Amino acid sequence: MPALSRHAKGVYSIAPTPFTDRGSVDHASLDRLVDFYAAAGVDGLTILGQLGEAPKLDAAEARDIVTRVTARAPFPIVVGVSSPGFAAMRSLTGAAMDAGAAGVMIAPPPTLRTDDQIVTYYAGAAEAIGDEVPFAIQDYPLTFTVQMSPAVIRRIATDNPGCVMVKHEDWPGLEKISTLRGFDRDGEMPRLSILCGNGGLFLDFETERGADGAMTGYCFPEMLVDIVRRSAANEREAAHDLFDAHLPLLRYEQQPGVGLAVRKYVLHRRGVLGSAAQRAPATHLTPTARAEIDYLLARLARHDVRAKLAG
Amino acid sequence: MPALSRHAKGVYSIAPTPFTDRGSVDHASLDRLVDFYAAAGVDGLTILGQLGEAPKLDAAEARDIVTRVTARAPFPIVVGVSSPGFAAMRSLTGAAMDAGAAGVMIAPPPTLRTDDQIVTYYAGAAEAIGDEVPFAIQDYPLTFTVQMSPAVIRRIATDNPGCVMVKHEDWPGLEKISTLRGFDRDGEMPRLSILCGNGGLFLDFETERGADGAMTGYCFPEMLVDIVRRSAANEREAAHDLFDAHLPLLRYEQQPGVGLAVRKYVLHRRGVLGSAAQRAPATHLTPTARAEIDYLLARLARHDVRAKLAG
Amino acid sequence: MPALSRHAKGVYSIAPTPFTDRGSVDHASLDRLVDFYAAAGVDGLTILGQLGEAPKLDAAEARDIVTRVTARAPFPIVVGVSSPGFAAMRSLTGAAMDAGAAGVMIAPPPTLRTDDQIVTYYAGAAEAIGDEVPFAIQDYPLTFTVQMSPAVIRRIATDNPGCVMVKHEDWPGLEKISTLRGFDRDGEMPRLSILCGNGGLFLDFETERGADGAMTGYCFPEMLVDIVRRSAANEREAAHDLFDAHLPLLRYEQQPGVGLAVRKYVLHRRGVLGSAAQRAPATHLTPTARAEIDYLLARLARHDVRAKLAG
Amino acid sequence: MPALSRHAKGVYSIAPTPFTDRGSVDHASLDRLVDFYAAAGVDGLTILGQLGEAPKLDAAEARDIVTRVTARAPFPIVVGVSSPGFAAMRSLTGAAMDAGAAGVMIAPPPTLRTDDQIVTYYAGAAEAIGDEVPFAIQDYPLTFTVQMSPAVIRRIATDNPGCVMVKHEDWPGLEKISTLRGFDRDGEMPRLSILCGNGGLFLDFETERGADGAMTGYCFPEMLVDIVRRSAANEREAAHDLFDAHLPLLRYEQQPGVGLAVRKYVLHRRGVLGSAAQRAPATHLTPTARAEIDYLLARLARHDVRAKLAG
Repeated sequence: MPALSRHAKGVYSIAPTPFTDRGSVDHASLDRLVDFYAAAGVDGLTILGQLGEAPKLDAAEARDIVTRVTARAPFPIVVGVSSPGFAAMRSLTGAAMDAGAAGVMIAPPPTLRTDDQIVTYYAGAAEAIGDEVPFAIQDYPLTFTVQMSPAVIRRIATDNPGCVMVKHEDWPGLEKISTLRGFDRDGEMPRLSILCGNGGLFLDFETERGADGAMTGYCFPEMLVDIVRRSAANEREAAHDLFDAHLPLLRYEQQPGVGLAVRKYVLHRRGVLGSAAQRAPATHLTPTARAEIDYLLARLARHDVRAKLAG
Repeated sequence: MPALSRHAKGVYSIAPTPFTDRGSVDHASLDRLVDFYAAAGVDGLTILGQLGEAPKLDAAEARDIVTRVTARAPFPIVVGVSSPGFAAMRSLTGAAMDAGAAGVMIAPPPTLRTDDQIVTYYAGAAEAIGDEVPFAIQDYPLTFTVQMSPAVIRRIATDNPGCVMVKHEDWPGLEKISTLRGFDRDGEMPRLSILCGNGGLFLDFETERGADGAMTGYCFPEMLVDIVRRSAANEREAAHDLFDAHLPLLRYEQQPGVGLAVRKYVLHRRGVLGSAAQRAPATHLTPTARAEIDYLLARLARHDVRAKLAG
Repeated sequence: MPALSRHAKGVYSIAPTPFTDRGSVDHASLDRLVDFYAAAGVDGLTILGQLGEAPKLDAAEARDIVTRVTARAPFPIVVGVSSPGFAAMRSLTGAAMDAGAAGVMIAPPPTLRTDDQIVTYYAGAAEAIGDEVPFAIQDYPLTFTVQMSPAVIRRIATDNPGCVMVKHEDWPGLEKISTLRGFDRDGEMPRLSILCGNGGLFLDFETERGADGAMTGYCFPEMLVDIVRRSAANEREAAHDLFDAHLPLLRYEQQPGVGLAVRKYVLHRRGVLGSAAQRAPATHLTPTARAEIDYLLARLARHDVRAKLAG
Repeated sequence: MPALSRHAKGVYSIAPTPFTDRGSVDHASLDRLVDFYAAAGVDGLTILGQLGEAPKLDAAEARDIVTRVTARAPFPIVVGVSSPGFAAMRSLTGAAMDAGAAGVMIAPPPTLRTDDQIVTYYAGAAEAIGDEVPFAIQDYPLTFTVQMSPAVIRRIATDNPGCVMVKHEDWPGLEKISTLRGFDRDGEMPRLSILCGNGGLFLDFETERGADGAMTGYCFPEMLVDIVRRSAANEREAAHDLFDAHLPLLRYEQQPGVGLAVRKYVLHRRGVLGSAAQRAPATHLTPTARAEIDYLLARLARHDVRAKLAG
């Protein structure tokens, strides 16, 4: 599989980690999940991220998942390797790249505050994983409490040849995309692939602002693929029509904390996951919440037949 | 005007404070704004909240606005009196109630962490403003970083007879409404009016969960009024249809930081505000952002004629 | 009184605001406090800071205190004017300078994170108060959660001619002083007066690192004055001996939250304040805590006779 | 070795993890360190805590250290097992107890805010490690941003029989000790051993308030042992005299971030550690900082001969 590139485009889905109701990794569901994303037409897959419940896995399980997914997937795999220390980051990165991953993703530890602290951290991380490993910055202030200005991202991209991508999930974030693209156009920084997260909540405008696509885990990856394609084809109205039809459900899934439970519930209902279970500490949906999701799915199915689920 | 009640229902809009381009309070726009909300059918109005740029006003300006609005409005007025100290809170509350306000709203200072700290703070605030003044708790963790569990709200409501309302804007927040309503049903706490904020992002389900309505500043208060009415009338599909049509714009307006600029821009375009200006420190919309809002308005106008603006 | 200068040296005490037991401003104690600082030999006084309970005063009280203190004091007065909005900051600054203050102090709002946000904020503040008003940056991350790197302070000092001082209370902070002094020596930034806060916990080394003195509220300002003098006179051992004798009490006073109660208790015991009362919300000392302070004072009195209190 | 008990007393030192200059675990220094603590008279040792650089170790290294230390030490070993997920916590706990540890220590994840969240988290952790494993709560708000009121600690202690100890490092924290001891005396909660951390900054009064001793990593554990002994023997003046002599250095070591570098530097100078190196990301001492520490050691040596280092 080719290495992650600064010209990457399209949709890289964030994969949840399937567990059985007893709490072990569910390999059959994992295989089905990879096939499901392939059928949806995604361009890549990111595993072991925050919403992949990576911190709940032990080291052996994490490596096992990387091996299994890279072996099966017909597209590049990005592996989340964020760790409190560089030793664990280096060892997981090595294992992931050996197994055939295309690159890694690194989130900042929540203690970073100043521009210099952030830049220094990424310099250390880049040195730890090695220059030849392409990596994505995860820019997600709502979860990590670290705010990176466009100027900081420019410094990281300029200092570290391995930095090829930003998973953009700042909120608000539209002007940030425009600013980064401006730096690029003016020759002030190396090009980065910008893939947008944040549940996809602003994907309709993010592509118009110059983002290369999405890296998020919305439970209908087919929709993300269609939006990016239509936007690239300048079919603006069609892109927004599809986006707007999904927005009520997408917004429901994008709630902090409970979002992963919503996502796993829908993927379970769609027949991809054998169980919606999370490892502890887990969030659970009440019957009322499940009924709300079912209602949103039923409403969505009027516009997008893919949301029609077997009763 | 009657005092704020624990049985309050409907829509209490959050009013922005109109400024001229030079930065002074714009009284003509303020009058127009009150008339606009009256025409929209709202049940009350909240002024001098976070999105009313209250901290940017000096004390004389704040009192002047309270007097002007209470004199003109045909509905109850809630006044935001959150202050770093109880002396200022007491004096602004006294002035507001003298001017004819129906009650006040109090947000927690961002330093509060434990349940006891929060309960103690509200006990102090209630003592400062006086037992006879009805008040609303503002429960908005995203902005204030203070997390109140349902049990804490129950303690505050039980301890303080003046506590009659919660402005609910936790996120996620649906289960919290259900839990509070359960406490109420089981006789474990005095009834509180629950009005939902957070831009209205979950209003479609919040009313179904038992909320009494909305207290938020979305730029189409008519829509909020219709949602609450349809929901009360059990017209579920009609409520969701209208909500979904507005959701793309509502989501755009609900971005932290930039949201007030969006709101003022639309209210300016709707002819209510003479200017979209904020007092410094202000956020500004780029031409691209304004074009995005115009596009959202144009799309919305196909479903809701009230969004059709004169070119 | 001369304007606050970038060459200011010595000790600027942080003055508490005296209240009576009933909660009103205690003017007699305020006068006594000014005379006490004059007798202690301080070089200036800072009023209406965080530990001056400024947020608990209403606007009229704040102005009244400025007028009274500037009229009485034989040294320059710095006034804390931190406000959530620039309108209130401008109006308090104007009143303070009219009353004869030497300059103002501005703390960053706790929402600032990135370097650019901090620099932009101070540019806005400087514009609001006017170019001719000298101001001090308050760099106190423990309380304000805003972290300013030396490079950010350099940018603020370079951009704003009114910026003449930094109240340094980062923790750890010794290297920051060395770095700022290095910038100064290398001609990379205009000279700033560096006065150290943080209760004085590292004053013994801060002066050796190049700080110009102290700006803090320790209850024995005479000690701060002596340390700075001895350090300037290269009497290193004598400076440390005195510092070490005070450190047990100083450390006790420097506890977050409860510190002001300790300080007011000692100033009350020393006969300066008529009451140790704070305005609500207040922290209170238990009898055990008061006995601990008395014990520390008794131990200190063996080394420093000024700590000997009438029974 | 007996299990960790709710009657544990004395000094449990927090051990740093020795690394060579090349970054590998330094086994010779680790052995020397265990012997050093034994000679100092400590009652136990805590390894793999925050200041043991635990997050920088990979899983195999962590287990190896546990095995080596428990095999050599003549006193009980507490192992820090804080992990982002319960799976890793369970597996490290199992390995530690199998190797002969006396119990484990669990810090709260920084996302916890409300009382219920904290209580729920410890219930989940207790279930994960198993009822028969004794554990200590680490109550360190400055680092973890989680504030536990005494009532929350009472709930955790009451709900979970395995909870036998609190590592108390709240700041301010003296009243918390008194409150917890009051609960105990009034039969409102099971007795907990209270061992104080926070660098020992208030140990002189903490023992007087009812704490059972210290659990901290100050570079002169002999002093901690002496303070606890003298305090238990009611030799109040002697305890304070020794404490005060160490306070200037102790305060220097207790600086956030840089503290571990100070501690390792002194332990290196004392001949215990072969190197003062930390694993990346590391903090480094400037030559000026090292000179300051040397100066503090020289001054301390006049009062405590153990601080006299070979030139």
